Amino acid sequence: MADIGALPLTLLSEQFARLPGIGMKSAQRLAYHVMEMSDAEANELAQAILNAKRKVHTCKVCCNFTENELCRFCDDARRDRRTVCVVEAPRDIAAFERTKEYKGVYHVLHGLISPINGVGPDALTIKQLLARVNSGDIDEVIMATNPTVEGEATAMYISKLLKPFGVKVTRLAFGLPIGGMLEYADEITLYKALENRSEI
Amino acid sequence: MADIGALPLTLLSEQFARLPGIGMKSAQRLAYHVMEMSDAEANELAQAILNAKRKVHTCKVCCNFTENELCRFCDDARRDRRTVCVVEAPRDIAAFERTKEYKGVYHVLHGLISPINGVGPDALTIKQLLARVNSGDIDEVIMATNPTVEGEATAMYISKLLKPFGVKVTRLAFGLPIGGMLEYADEITLYKALENRSEI
Repeated sequence: MADIGALPLTLLSEQFARLPGIGMKSAQRLAYHVMEMSDAEANELAQAILNAKRKVHTCKVCCNFTENELCRFCDDARRDRRTVCVVEAPRDIAAFERTKEYKGVYHVLHGLISPINGVGPDALTIKQLLARVNSGDIDEVIMATNPTVEGEATAMYISKLLKPFGVKVTRLAFGLPIGGMLEYADEITLYKALENRSEI
Repeated sequence: MADIGALPLTLLSEQFARLPGIGMKSAQRLAYHVMEMSDAEANELAQAILNAKRKVHTCKVCCNFTENELCRFCDDARRDRRTVCVVEAPRDIAAFERTKEYKGVYHVLHGLISPINGVGPDALTIKQLLARVNSGDIDEVIMATNPTVEGEATAMYISKLLKPFGVKVTRLAFGLPIGGMLEYADEITLYKALENRSEI
């Protein structure tokens, strides 16, 4: 990392550069920006980081982030607790909530099985999911991991573990994105769209 | 700002979204990333922010950022203190240092005159620059503000103030960037390149 004038500034830009999607140039720009903030603003930023780490933990039911015992979905009596949508990360929940159609609850894996990166099933919250299903109050588990190699493998792995419980296990549909153009669709997406075609 | 699960996380993403070049989506991603950091890593990031604000201040000669009384350029006996390069911000110094050609010292204005944004000459470090020149040890002041309306206006304003001191005041040359293509040059750059042509 290039020296940008004062050691504490260089160290700060190194910290920023470790964040995802922030390159060396942006990190330096952010470090200079912190110098332009008031003391109160810089304190707020630092405190927000510490507070998030200190106050936020995982929901004891679904492993989503929350500052309470239960996350706001598990704690909401209007949600259908018999339907569980299994996602890789808390950020994926926001995507489902934007549809305004999904009324079930969630289960956050906090990762995908990835032997290459040394992530085995035990590193995820699969045990907690099996315990939820084992409690017998669940009708359907929707595997909503991303359509990547690791997402597919994790969905398959978990669905096999769930089979003995007699619960219905489904997978998100894959096909053409709405508004997408046939000519720009990759061959696997198009193949999936063809394979999963439905009568009109 | 969208609720992203837990209040401290939402507040953190709002803090990140205030930083330059970070939109709402990136800010949420950064907030989730903080949750993946270890407590020690999150502490380091927060401390780096606080340390930069606490330890870094402006050089008493040139107003560049430093954690000491003098910045490393003003404190370096090998630099030519009779030549002063006037820049808008500390980040601009890095650009000059990358040329490895400039051996003089700097003066950081910490902004440009901008009546639209309510920034008058008194908000900059112009007084300190005049005091340096008045001390009589300076041969040349290079106005190195950006070639924007505000950069030009500030350079002109300061050069007028410097005239009575009998010091040589120069401005960076404008023309075609090296490696640039004529056909892509904007008309003002090309006009400047033509106007400032030199015999070969």
